[in-house]
Amino acid sequence: MDYPIEVRRHSAAHVMAAAVKRLFPQAKFGVGPAIDNGFYYDIDIGRALTPEDLKAIDKEMQKIVNQEYEFLREEMGIDEGIELFKLLGQDYKVELLNDIKTKGTTKVGAEELGDVEPGSTKISVYKTGDFVDLCRGPHVGSVKDIGVWKLNRMAAVYWRGKESNPQLQRVYGLCFATEEELAAYEKMMEEAEKRDHRKLGKELEIFMFDDEVGPGLPLWLPNGGVLIEELEKLAKDMETAAGYVRVRTPHLTKEELYLRSGHLPYYADSMFPPMELDGERYYVKPMNCPMHHKIFGNRPRSYRELPLRLAEYGTCYRYEKSGELFGLMRVRSMQMNDAHIYCSEEQFEEEFMAVIAMYQKYFELFGIKKYSMRLSTHSQEGLGKKYVDNERLWLKTEEMVRNAMLKHGIPFVEVANEAAFYGPKIDVQIWSAIGREFTLATNQVDFAVPERFNLAFINSEGKPEVPLVIHRAPLSTHERMIGFLIEHYAGAFPLWLAPIQVAVLPVADRHNEFAYKLAEELKGHGVRAEVDDAAESVGKKIRNSEKAKIPLTLVVGDKEAESGDLTIRRRGVEEQDVMPKADFIAMVVDTIKNRK
Amino acid sequence: MDYPIEVRRHSAAHVMAAAVKRLFPQAKFGVGPAIDNGFYYDIDIGRALTPEDLKAIDKEMQKIVNQEYEFLREEMGIDEGIELFKLLGQDYKVELLNDIKTKGTTKVGAEELGDVEPGSTKISVYKTGDFVDLCRGPHVGSVKDIGVWKLNRMAAVYWRGKESNPQLQRVYGLCFATEEELAAYEKMMEEAEKRDHRKLGKELEIFMFDDEVGPGLPLWLPNGGVLIEELEKLAKDMETAAGYVRVRTPHLTKEELYLRSGHLPYYADSMFPPMELDGERYYVKPMNCPMHHKIFGNRPRSYRELPLRLAEYGTCYRYEKSGELFGLMRVRSMQMNDAHIYCSEEQFEEEFMAVIAMYQKYFELFGIKKYSMRLSTHSQEGLGKKYVDNERLWLKTEEMVRNAMLKHGIPFVEVANEAAFYGPKIDVQIWSAIGREFTLATNQVDFAVPERFNLAFINSEGKPEVPLVIHRAPLSTHERMIGFLIEHYAGAFPLWLAPIQVAVLPVADRHNEFAYKLAEELKGHGVRAEVDDAAESVGKKIRNSEKAKIPLTLVVGDKEAESGDLTIRRRGVEEQDVMPKADFIAMVVDTIKNRK
Repeated sequence: MDYPIEVRRHSAAHVMAAAVKRLFPQAKFGVGPAIDNGFYYDIDIGRALTPEDLKAIDKEMQKIVNQEYEFLREEMGIDEGIELFKLLGQDYKVELLNDIKTKGTTKVGAEELGDVEPGSTKISVYKTGDFVDLCRGPHVGSVKDIGVWKLNRMAAVYWRGKESNPQLQRVYGLCFATEEELAAYEKMMEEAEKRDHRKLGKELEIFMFDDEVGPGLPLWLPNGGVLIEELEKLAKDMETAAGYVRVRTPHLTKEELYLRSGHLPYYADSMFPPMELDGERYYVKPMNCPMHHKIFGNRPRSYRELPLRLAEYGTCYRYEKSGELFGLMRVRSMQMNDAHIYCSEEQFEEEFMAVIAMYQKYFELFGIKKYSMRLSTHSQEGLGKKYVDNERLWLKTEEMVRNAMLKHGIPFVEVANEAAFYGPKIDVQIWSAIGREFTLATNQVDFAVPERFNLAFINSEGKPEVPLVIHRAPLSTHERMIGFLIEHYAGAFPLWLAPIQVAVLPVADRHNEFAYKLAEELKGHGVRAEVDDAAESVGKKIRNSEKAKIPLTLVVGDKEAESGDLTIRRRGVEEQDVMPKADFIAMVVDTIKNRK
Repeated sequence: MDYPIEVRRHSAAHVMAAAVKRLFPQAKFGVGPAIDNGFYYDIDIGRALTPEDLKAIDKEMQKIVNQEYEFLREEMGIDEGIELFKLLGQDYKVELLNDIKTKGTTKVGAEELGDVEPGSTKISVYKTGDFVDLCRGPHVGSVKDIGVWKLNRMAAVYWRGKESNPQLQRVYGLCFATEEELAAYEKMMEEAEKRDHRKLGKELEIFMFDDEVGPGLPLWLPNGGVLIEELEKLAKDMETAAGYVRVRTPHLTKEELYLRSGHLPYYADSMFPPMELDGERYYVKPMNCPMHHKIFGNRPRSYRELPLRLAEYGTCYRYEKSGELFGLMRVRSMQMNDAHIYCSEEQFEEEFMAVIAMYQKYFELFGIKKYSMRLSTHSQEGLGKKYVDNERLWLKTEEMVRNAMLKHGIPFVEVANEAAFYGPKIDVQIWSAIGREFTLATNQVDFAVPERFNLAFINSEGKPEVPLVIHRAPLSTHERMIGFLIEHYAGAFPLWLAPIQVAVLPVADRHNEFAYKLAEELKGHGVRAEVDDAAESVGKKIRNSEKAKIPLTLVVGDKEAESGDLTIRRRGVEEQDVMPKADFIAMVVDTIKNRK
């Protein structure tokens, strides 16, 4: 049968638990959900598991699968369940059931642990052979339907994430419907490891971290500086053509600004702590919007000025726990491709779709073939809590976004209860060349904050009207975008983006002069060319150029110096081209200019 | 006689005091020095002075001058002086003399009040007619030699700047050798008022301040955004051509970085206060250099990589007292045209002079005709206190800078005891089109901090060597540079810099389509063109374009729409040009590209 992959994965977790129970009868279990690409189960056998244990568990799982047990569901009352799991010695499950019984939830902090429906008075268990587990289901029909799996790693975790609780072993497994899918995934992961932006970022000298500067605060080396400059040039070209204007705002502000915007006190946990100055509290900015609102509100506005599109590559600072920092993907400083579009309701659809079109243009430019958009809406229960309390405007703006997307045939999924506090948003996910998923920035509607800033324009009937605001960042932050691009291109950037575009390698010292003259000529055309005149063999220099992933390499020797024709090695291409110098320069300049 | 102007001004202060004494016999005097363009005297007559008093004082000064008294110097011991000024009822002077007697100085905080040589056991007084004043001199021979003066303003001040002290009236006067000089100065001031960057910055919508963001933290409006982008483009063009590479560094850092650099704790008063995060102290950066040092030190460096020129438009934050903030000239956020050049001693002269040459190129581009350079050196007494304790390197680097300047014929003055703590510096002053003086950034040598960061390169003999660092910022900060440029150009920016370069004014609604098509065509060529299709007369639109100081204005009516030729109004030029469209576009594009 064609079970949804999540069901297979969740069932595989059960099979693993059953195998563990056979091998370690004293084993106690935490929770075991399906996750991206597989599953895990939290296990307590009174000692740490070893790689050998994992092999044995894997083998035992195969035995269970061969026995073709069915997943049998049984329902019972909570008290009966508590008795059953007490009998089975499953203390953690008993704790969860007691929580459900007394509090109606298994939440500690934000997370519902999921074995039992919150608020339920009944529970369900699943049996496979002689193994019984607490579970809401659903499951596959027979253990043989779980697909193919591979136990691939372990981690020590605390029960329910609390350090005072016992430590469990979290055993992770991959799980796919077919061998081919598993193999493809493992190949992708292997490739992903080679492309890891932290590894390549160091090798290609793109960025660095420093202990004396602090975690999550990257310093961009000259090669990273080129990537940043090129991306900003791209953004400015696109945004200027699309009628944006550029502003600059400080990185610091008084507390008052974020009290007015409504970010404080709710957002304080994600902000850097305040500084006390002249008896006032100052913050480094976690976002640019309130500053842009101030610029909009600097003087009376007329409908004739709308849409007003204020763009800024604003650097924002957000607090992430140091344990959650990850290379360029989770950082504390963010150079954001930010802009805020102030428009009337009538202008909304056109503006919103122009932003979507801009995203798509970038996807095309970067060869991003797979992407998905997700419309996050409010929830009624959240009104006045997570969400601004104005149901009419929620429904209206959600409808505006939904209609615009449908009308223009943009595929999207809709998810309730995940909006921003001030309006619905579109989240964009992209997949890299090797199929790895990245979360890009969002495209958000804001119908609430402009009013808090008393923003208004005089409409064509002479009446004041509050503008809608679109928050957008198609190129995300430099940090996340460059992290993505490093992995997407495996560091082999297209010509326009490459830190060094052309390497000029003199064969012998007597060719240095020609090489430098050639490099100067290229630089005069705006090409980033560099001469490698180190006292090394040409072969070594070519290998260095390849290692640095330089798109074009020119080896210049007697022949080139005499004829003026150039011999061109293209990155990753075996054959060499010979071309008159003028043609080569024209080709390079054109390729860069048009970002081919 | 041709007295130095400071002597005339100081003497004028005495004459004013003599006049005050005649009119208000009970008057007591604080201090009365010469200042830029004139003098002041702090006066206590037991009540506030009125504008009428000022007129009377002015008249009385003229009487004294007509009486041609000589300035007669008399010396005496301190005790004798104290007796004399007690007799004269001059309590403030008595206080100063007592300070000299007991402490050898009149300093409270940083300022020596100057009437008496610190540490002296003798004092001097000057007499003009029956007026006697405590003073070191020198003075002009006769009161008739003070030149021409004008009492121009008053301010209330506390005696010796302390709020618990009595309040005095500070009466300011202008003073010049000739009527012509005074008139020229007053004319410049009148023009300067019209050009005030705070006034024009608001009118031309270049920047704004906001109470909820905070004092000294400008927000740059779209027109200011254009100026910033153009200046950065200029800097990047120049710096790329000069072999700089660009980096980006965070605005926050752990305290450790500034402890290592040596800025903390000494520089803490000029920094924003720290933030406490994860048990560490973080600061917003007041300068970029330590970050750049980290980048240099990221991996071993070879002499082959030197000079390494790391550039960044880094935004720094410094604390200035709110009373000292002034428009864009004294702010708390600074977007700095920063770069650090790491070089060997042999490379120093060439690199240093290349920086000076870059300054000069900018001066030429902006039509800055008058500038001066000032070499600030160390003082022996300051070694180990204000200055890094390495006399050999001080003398050596000062000699290197001095020789380089002399050899290349760059005029400069030399001032001892004004260097940075890590090395000698060149300060650059510039004068605007109307002769107003501005302090631009500095060009500094650093022979001390690189060692604190363990910076080294392997020299051609295979030995590690500490690089010298040149700190430079020829375009200063955006804040100060744009503030200067607004006043220098009176807001009438050259074409390449103008926020709107071409205004297109349709005569009637039927010309709107042609106007918009023309503007689009110009935009396609990278020209910032805007259509004004407001329902107003062409005359009004032309006046608006002039008010906005737009360099080129095209009025398009039937004639233009039919012929395709354009009628061009140049800002400030009466006659209009007629030109084929293609020629106009070519002219505009060329003028912008070459920043003519």
